[in-house]
Amino acid sequence: MGDAGVNLLCYDKFMTLWQAKIITLFPEIFPGPLGVSLVGRALAEHIWQLATYPLRDFAQGRHRTVDDTPFGGGAGMVLRPDVVDRAMVAATADAPNLTKIVLTPRGTPLTQAHIRAWAASAGLVILCGRFEGMDQRVIEHHHMSEISLGDFVLAGGEVAALAVIEACVRLLPGVMGDTASGVEESFEQGLLEYPHYTRPADWGGNSVPEILLSGHHEKIRAWRQAQSEEVTRLRRPDLWQKYKNT
Amino acid sequence: MGDAGVNLLCYDKFMTLWQAKIITLFPEIFPGPLGVSLVGRALAEHIWQLATYPLRDFAQGRHRTVDDTPFGGGAGMVLRPDVVDRAMVAATADAPNLTKIVLTPRGTPLTQAHIRAWAASAGLVILCGRFEGMDQRVIEHHHMSEISLGDFVLAGGEVAALAVIEACVRLLPGVMGDTASGVEESFEQGLLEYPHYTRPADWGGNSVPEILLSGHHEKIRAWRQAQSEEVTRLRRPDLWQKYKNT
Repeated sequence: MGDAGVNLLCYDKFMTLWQAKIITLFPEIFPGPLGVSLVGRALAEHIWQLATYPLRDFAQGRHRTVDDTPFGGGAGMVLRPDVVDRAMVAATADAPNLTKIVLTPRGTPLTQAHIRAWAASAGLVILCGRFEGMDQRVIEHHHMSEISLGDFVLAGGEVAALAVIEACVRLLPGVMGDTASGVEESFEQGLLEYPHYTRPADWGGNSVPEILLSGHHEKIRAWRQAQSEEVTRLRRPDLWQKYKNT
Repeated sequence: MGDAGVNLLCYDKFMTLWQAKIITLFPEIFPGPLGVSLVGRALAEHIWQLATYPLRDFAQGRHRTVDDTPFGGGAGMVLRPDVVDRAMVAATADAPNLTKIVLTPRGTPLTQAHIRAWAASAGLVILCGRFEGMDQRVIEHHHMSEISLGDFVLAGGEVAALAVIEACVRLLPGVMGDTASGVEESFEQGLLEYPHYTRPADWGGNSVPEILLSGHHEKIRAWRQAQSEEVTRLRRPDLWQKYKNT
């Protein structure tokens, strides 16, 4: 086989890599937690690829300033639109079709439905907020989806980016050893998961529920279903209501 | 001043440190993102303290096994109650009154109200789940609160622990430079935040909303309030409903 064939092979392999491109003031955070366990193994095995775009590199002037005070007054600093724009242009230059998201408490709440869609796509460009946030014009100019990890406030978007990427990568083909694990879990059926038990069967006088030792598969299935429904009803009236309506 | 005085001073200082004790299979993840920016500075300045309890150290036998197959069948592995228990006993030995939480998608959703309460307490013991989860008996035995970061599934609890700790530490006294920043932000008034704008005022033909350049504080306040209400109504009908009812 000639060089052309080899090149084509490499190109093909490159094209199928799931890509995570992260625009951040703290590139040293990555891969960090994404370098260990099954997500880290998948990175080493080139199932996915990570690139960081340090925001400071796209600043201009002697002081490489990335932020400024908010128009209209108020506490904190705001990331400048021109600096964020240059980083976005660099991150999307060779990958114009990646989904672009910005992690901010103002966003739509992240769900497993987002994760499944993004894991099935070519990858993500993720802008990590810091300080009070970023100029709204650059978010709109690049059609970024504003996504929130939940109803709590972080110091920046980096830890949220770690969560988004970890959740996506574990769903990529070849990452999880046992594929059933990806399906039989919380949120996939609209219910929380049933409780788990393992050895020892008697732990200091605490026994596991007897039904689980019975070997009666149908009864075990029914017990687990009842447990899932009960914990969902108690802890997540919102999910329970949706489940009952379907 | 004698030695006793100095010791007392050290002891006092130690007692006021906010503590994060993390039980994990991947201690190398910490401090990681918690070592940078304002949260990392606060760690270096002894405003808070981090300790990891590697789960593998509390396993027994030649293979130091931490997990086993689930009773009743099913995919994946479950963390053993005896191994988790020994780690919990070690983590709580010198701090019996810390709040104990386990991060799992089965839990109650994390909110800023949890974060505020925990930041005002002495600290947290956090058990990070992996695999299919952990034996339910040890969760109940140690009265751990089951907490979920959101409706998505991670590979383990470690990234969720990073989020919880970062959110708490930024609220500790002396961590945020500008205290107004902690109050005037998303969720504190039950509404999402208004959009931010900074220099340049004209960015490639995109201008900032004119009202923000007017210097008219009362009109700016009213505009921001209207923007907050609008984004909350569009993106978070759940929060909007609660806000209207209060």
